Amino acid sequence: MNTHPMILLTLVAESILKDRLIHEIRSAGARGFTITDVSGEGSRQRRVSELLGDNVKIEVIAKREVADKVLEVLQKEYFSRYAVIAYMSEIQVVREEKYF
Amino acid sequence: MNTHPMILLTLVAESILKDRLIHEIRSAGARGFTITDVSGEGSRQRRVSELLGDNVKIEVIAKREVADKVLEVLQKEYFSRYAVIAYMSEIQVVREEKYF
Amino acid sequence: MNTHPMILLTLVAESILKDRLIHEIRSAGARGFTITDVSGEGSRQRRVSELLGDNVKIEVIAKREVADKVLEVLQKEYFSRYAVIAYMSEIQVVREEKYF
Repeated sequence: MNTHPMILLTLVAESILKDRLIHEIRSAGARGFTITDVSGEGSRQRRVSELLGDNVKIEVIAKREVADKVLEVLQKEYFSRYAVIAYMSEIQVVREEKYF
Repeated sequence: MNTHPMILLTLVAESILKDRLIHEIRSAGARGFTITDVSGEGSRQRRVSELLGDNVKIEVIAKREVADKVLEVLQKEYFSRYAVIAYMSEIQVVREEKYF
Repeated sequence: MNTHPMILLTLVAESILKDRLIHEIRSAGARGFTITDVSGEGSRQRRVSELLGDNVKIEVIAKREVADKVLEVLQKEYFSRYAVIAYMSEIQVVREEKYF
């Protein structure tokens, strides 16, 4: 099966940020995303470590340029204020034209 | 820790396709899978972009040949009719014999 | 965007193991994790294949040494007794200092 490299960008953040993050993702040019309700704990919540917060995971398949645009916005406007996790991995997709 | 390369195949589709996709995955020879309820938006749903659909994510750890078999079935019978996302990434597993 | 390689360790296990696995993850030195409720089927559940069990997915971003520590504990105390899936993949993170 013929596949093509693409970036899977994953964000994990407080659920209250969901709509704003979806807006940033669309503005950066991504054509789709997947949302999962998750809970979790990060370095910021260490003191209340028994409480698993209400978080959301947003996954975006995009070209590296689009992923970079999202990360730049996060860097400028989110990272210093909110507990947002962001990471990228390389995936192989079929039908790459769906993600442009 | 000694690990072995394997493929993580991820499908995201409308929930209504869940049972059929599980059947395809088993038929291809996969020995297990993980199901997550997700919501999302893709290039097809652009016009109703405010609605986050009821989707399912199915993850399968398998050898490349098994993943390819699943992708071939998707190619033939699903991609033209349904909003199915499919991608692969390389992972490292312990106890590889569990996935054969 | 400047990114740094890190390991994404994913565990999938029966929900009843959640608290114990979180304890192992913290003990190994991980600073955070994400929990997702999932269902699934693995090689052990083949005979009751119509039943999708109540499982939990735990994702940890960490350095390889920390991931290895978790895997060693799983190897020693879990793999022979429980249906635990464990795999690693390489991801690129921003703000790597959050994960040390």
